[in-house]
Amino acid sequence: MPVLSPNRLFPTERRSLDVALSLYGAIRDLPIISPHGHTDPAWFAEDAAFRDPATLFVIPDHYVLRMLISQGVTYEALGIAPCDGGTFERDPRRIWNTFAQHYHLFRATPSKMWIDHALAEVFGVSEPLNADTADAIYDQVDAALANPAFRPRALYDRFGIEVLATTDGALDTLEHHAAITTSGWNGRIIPTYRPDSVIDPEIEGFAQNLEKLAELTNEDTTTWTGYLAAHRNRRAAFIAMGATASDHGHATPETANLPVPEAEALFEKVRHGEARKEDAALFRAQMLTEMARMSVEDGLVLQLHPGSHRNHSGDIFKRFGRDMGFDIPAPVNYVESLRPLLEAFGTDPRLSVILFTLDETTYTRELAPLAGVYPSLKLGPAWWFFDSPDGMRRYREAVTETAGFYNTVGFNDDTRAFCSIPARHDVARRVDCAYLADLVVSGRLTEDEAHEVAVDLTYSLAKKAYRL
Amino acid sequence: MPVLSPNRLFPTERRSLDVALSLYGAIRDLPIISPHGHTDPAWFAEDAAFRDPATLFVIPDHYVLRMLISQGVTYEALGIAPCDGGTFERDPRRIWNTFAQHYHLFRATPSKMWIDHALAEVFGVSEPLNADTADAIYDQVDAALANPAFRPRALYDRFGIEVLATTDGALDTLEHHAAITTSGWNGRIIPTYRPDSVIDPEIEGFAQNLEKLAELTNEDTTTWTGYLAAHRNRRAAFIAMGATASDHGHATPETANLPVPEAEALFEKVRHGEARKEDAALFRAQMLTEMARMSVEDGLVLQLHPGSHRNHSGDIFKRFGRDMGFDIPAPVNYVESLRPLLEAFGTDPRLSVILFTLDETTYTRELAPLAGVYPSLKLGPAWWFFDSPDGMRRYREAVTETAGFYNTVGFNDDTRAFCSIPARHDVARRVDCAYLADLVVSGRLTEDEAHEVAVDLTYSLAKKAYRL
Amino acid sequence: MPVLSPNRLFPTERRSLDVALSLYGAIRDLPIISPHGHTDPAWFAEDAAFRDPATLFVIPDHYVLRMLISQGVTYEALGIAPCDGGTFERDPRRIWNTFAQHYHLFRATPSKMWIDHALAEVFGVSEPLNADTADAIYDQVDAALANPAFRPRALYDRFGIEVLATTDGALDTLEHHAAITTSGWNGRIIPTYRPDSVIDPEIEGFAQNLEKLAELTNEDTTTWTGYLAAHRNRRAAFIAMGATASDHGHATPETANLPVPEAEALFEKVRHGEARKEDAALFRAQMLTEMARMSVEDGLVLQLHPGSHRNHSGDIFKRFGRDMGFDIPAPVNYVESLRPLLEAFGTDPRLSVILFTLDETTYTRELAPLAGVYPSLKLGPAWWFFDSPDGMRRYREAVTETAGFYNTVGFNDDTRAFCSIPARHDVARRVDCAYLADLVVSGRLTEDEAHEVAVDLTYSLAKKAYRL
Repeated sequence: MPVLSPNRLFPTERRSLDVALSLYGAIRDLPIISPHGHTDPAWFAEDAAFRDPATLFVIPDHYVLRMLISQGVTYEALGIAPCDGGTFERDPRRIWNTFAQHYHLFRATPSKMWIDHALAEVFGVSEPLNADTADAIYDQVDAALANPAFRPRALYDRFGIEVLATTDGALDTLEHHAAITTSGWNGRIIPTYRPDSVIDPEIEGFAQNLEKLAELTNEDTTTWTGYLAAHRNRRAAFIAMGATASDHGHATPETANLPVPEAEALFEKVRHGEARKEDAALFRAQMLTEMARMSVEDGLVLQLHPGSHRNHSGDIFKRFGRDMGFDIPAPVNYVESLRPLLEAFGTDPRLSVILFTLDETTYTRELAPLAGVYPSLKLGPAWWFFDSPDGMRRYREAVTETAGFYNTVGFNDDTRAFCSIPARHDVARRVDCAYLADLVVSGRLTEDEAHEVAVDLTYSLAKKAYRL
Repeated sequence: MPVLSPNRLFPTERRSLDVALSLYGAIRDLPIISPHGHTDPAWFAEDAAFRDPATLFVIPDHYVLRMLISQGVTYEALGIAPCDGGTFERDPRRIWNTFAQHYHLFRATPSKMWIDHALAEVFGVSEPLNADTADAIYDQVDAALANPAFRPRALYDRFGIEVLATTDGALDTLEHHAAITTSGWNGRIIPTYRPDSVIDPEIEGFAQNLEKLAELTNEDTTTWTGYLAAHRNRRAAFIAMGATASDHGHATPETANLPVPEAEALFEKVRHGEARKEDAALFRAQMLTEMARMSVEDGLVLQLHPGSHRNHSGDIFKRFGRDMGFDIPAPVNYVESLRPLLEAFGTDPRLSVILFTLDETTYTRELAPLAGVYPSLKLGPAWWFFDSPDGMRRYREAVTETAGFYNTVGFNDDTRAFCSIPARHDVARRVDCAYLADLVVSGRLTEDEAHEVAVDLTYSLAKKAYRL
Repeated sequence: MPVLSPNRLFPTERRSLDVALSLYGAIRDLPIISPHGHTDPAWFAEDAAFRDPATLFVIPDHYVLRMLISQGVTYEALGIAPCDGGTFERDPRRIWNTFAQHYHLFRATPSKMWIDHALAEVFGVSEPLNADTADAIYDQVDAALANPAFRPRALYDRFGIEVLATTDGALDTLEHHAAITTSGWNGRIIPTYRPDSVIDPEIEGFAQNLEKLAELTNEDTTTWTGYLAAHRNRRAAFIAMGATASDHGHATPETANLPVPEAEALFEKVRHGEARKEDAALFRAQMLTEMARMSVEDGLVLQLHPGSHRNHSGDIFKRFGRDMGFDIPAPVNYVESLRPLLEAFGTDPRLSVILFTLDETTYTRELAPLAGVYPSLKLGPAWWFFDSPDGMRRYREAVTETAGFYNTVGFNDDTRAFCSIPARHDVARRVDCAYLADLVVSGRLTEDEAHEVAVDLTYSLAKKAYRL
């Protein structure tokens, strides 16, 4: 039996299946628009070979790590270096074998679907991955990686990507983006302005980050005015490299709109490291409104995805650091939190804010009603844990009846796992076609309309929403 | 392709479809019971022609407005007069054309389903609405409106309505209801007691409203006792005009049951405009319990639908006023909030409270468990944003296993869009038949039971729950 | 038409149905593992006949009571003795008839599915229950109960139960379990340590309970150290009788990890009845962490199912006491509440905590993400109101994509209704097979994998998670 069923994720009933196949046939090969993700621009600047199968598929993927950890595998066995300098597995083949031995844990998860797809479609693997096939598949993938056809730029072309956004800190010098631009290669790799490290007073190194920001911009970041000017400066530098959006990883969607003297006083506290917890929260809230104000001026689309309790396990954070799979969602209230920002700019036609959530209760209660009326608000796709067949389906069913299709923004792959990009977009396209097919067969959409909407969800909405 | 598919909203699998068709065939033509809605009693008192297609379908429908606003259309272009006296579009045909040009935004929304149904079934329109067909459809509808067969009373009869409840302020003199009663026409149009304007201290004009209440009732509304007597008086007047229910638009389901001296003291504050935010909230909470107390005496069914943050955009409220589509749901806790009222009257067999929600998380967590045990509590149907095929389906799936069918109250159309009433009831009937058919085919209900339940959901439960 | 459709709860589409039937055929007859429930160990110690149909099916089942109460039936009519010594129905046949007359209220509820199954499969009843058949069915069941084949031990064997856990207070002397062990009967009935009565300072009789705990253990429960030692002593006694788990009915999942002196001081307050509301809450929170600490030592699996507002109606509690169907779910936050416990033991490989919820919003937002990374956390099955076909389906769809199958623990029947145990497990098996079949047909799982997973969900995961 092939690992990938050709009709996967489609409806089973015959008429719905036929419609889904027809829709999918028409959009399957549309270019990939990837306006939000975490690939490394150095890959495309340097175009070096990827290192080995474990480094490609296991070590950097916190979806994969978390599932293995949950069942008693250790980080050390998965190639993660402990902070205390302790030993850890350095042999990629052994890491790969550990992964393969536990691959049944991923049954019915999106991780398995992406990895199966990447192995089959990118690397031509025809056997299911398990303890018995682990070595042979390792060899096959490892051999492929040595082939120039598997270098980043070649894969970019082969995947049919039209544009790919990376996510870059405010202090990033964007030299890889510059190198790509001047290289003559025709791929479009654009940065995204992610200023958390110079906005969140609780991030370690915040004070030094402000100094670096000053150096980078020649602005005086010891004053509120200079600090804001420094943001404007960096945003302009990002825009010059092709950026069309900013991205903000705040824990909550709290926004504030203080009078300037209060904002100045708050900045003074924050910059001297004197901010209490609530001051830090208020500063982040104020800065979202400042970012919106700048977006009105410079046109960057503002992306907000709150609701994660980062590094939930202090033990794991201490032993292994950030991004180890211990970021856990928390309840979120958008209706009250966003109000100060929306009161300031919510009906301004120049502003575009894209909202994401890890709290699905907000889809029908808050996000669809908000995006269904505020001209400045759009809904990002099903995100993170919900970037999955059932998650996407729930998203469409929860959102569409209130906000329609045209207040959504198409798909984001949101990934650092480059080889999973075609898989992720393919899952989204299939789920959308299945959803549209069910609407057609239940008389809620004509087939002609469904064909138009399928193209919009796959391609047009992403380009429009991200101003690409 | 016809705009309305005959099997719309039914299951696609053959056996389920057959059962759904059989159930639907048996209940499709049952009379419409409309126990909660917002049509204007003046229509039936005066029986004048409706003005034009834009006034009928676009201008008063905040579902329609909000979607168009969300995509950058202005209120002015949709015929809404700005509060500052600024200009706005007055030509209904141009408003209609703007609407038609953007009609694709409504794909897969209930608004489109209702409007398509009304155009096709009420006005005989056979083409889909879009920019090309806008003028011809405008002409066709406009011509029909001049025809006596399209006057309110004729449509009421043609729609097969058995009883239609309006919603009327406590200060309403009910002269239209009186005129209908004495007119000799055999339609049954009954009022509903909606006392928000004399209960919510934060509504503008509250003090004057109390004075008007005094005039209308000859009670002394400067005392707590007189104020309560005035409510009793108005409720009796509504009952005399046929009312069987009251309706309360509180932002939260908070209830309170203060000792009389505390309630008196609170009323003193409130009446003098000295209520702080928390006093106003407490007064509303107390008044829900007072309304329940009166219901025990006079038999009015108490409807409560909390959870909306009204007029979320201050900008829009200032420029265009209320009911512009900016009412946004918020999280609600029924379990704690209703307890004071339930402790007082929850097990009293004379009380009947119907609960609605905009926070779907409460269906399985709070509302079905509460209605599944308190004899005084029933669940209203899927409401507002959830008056939609997927919304209704989620409601049934969330509620039925815990509360059964017989703690629900049938369907409410809850609309001021008169021509959409048959469409809305038809959607509800179809969704219920589809749900029942799936229960039958999955062996959870016999077909005989399903036929009984279908009649109950369509007709009997509404009559019983609303004491009609 | 038979009461039980052979393909009930399976998909309707042909290919999915075929896969579901194949999966179900392979697991239908696997032994029942019942690691969490509320049957009475005295039944198996004494092996006496069950009394009568009403005592078996109606009076002790708070699902059944609550639905009848919600529609105006009185507790007295259902055989419940009022606390004030008032009269109540004592004739089981009349109680049965009242139940049967209202049986339509249970349409599409799990109660009806379980009772129909028990009547048909355990007692051979071939007619649907209603007012007309009530007497004949009463006679048939009543006659069967006189037959030795319907005694508890015979039914245990006939039901194919491999192990059955009861739930027993910390002060229980476990003499029935001892009697079973020494009886020579080969059934495996094991206790579960439920210490709420000696942990919750707000339970009536708490002070006396501490005294009884001292007597039973010969520990000094007037000191914090002695109190903890007494718990250890009781846990050891339970383990000696076969226990593998503890169970905790806290209202919230709050945990705390105080320094010993603070815990001692808190215990002093609590033991003297001087605890304010927040002290009592903190003590419960601290004790969850103590229980986890003991679990690390002695290996008992810790079960936590918070989120119920017990005895919501003061009126009913006063008149009829506890467990009358008035326990209502409330919102719960696991992410913050569990953190102190998880910071202490969350990554300890010796700890196993099983979490349940009545707040379904936590499935995707909190529970699946937590269980999908913490090695100490597993998810209990769909619980209480969600022990139902749609509830179970929502559970699988919400949980699997993030936590996989192997962070779940199989099915719990959680019941005191002994004759419903086969029905409940059968419903779970069918729903799981239907879910797996849909995964297979939509290409998300191979049929071979589905067969393995079906056995795991039915049998292996429960044994492993509960260390049976």
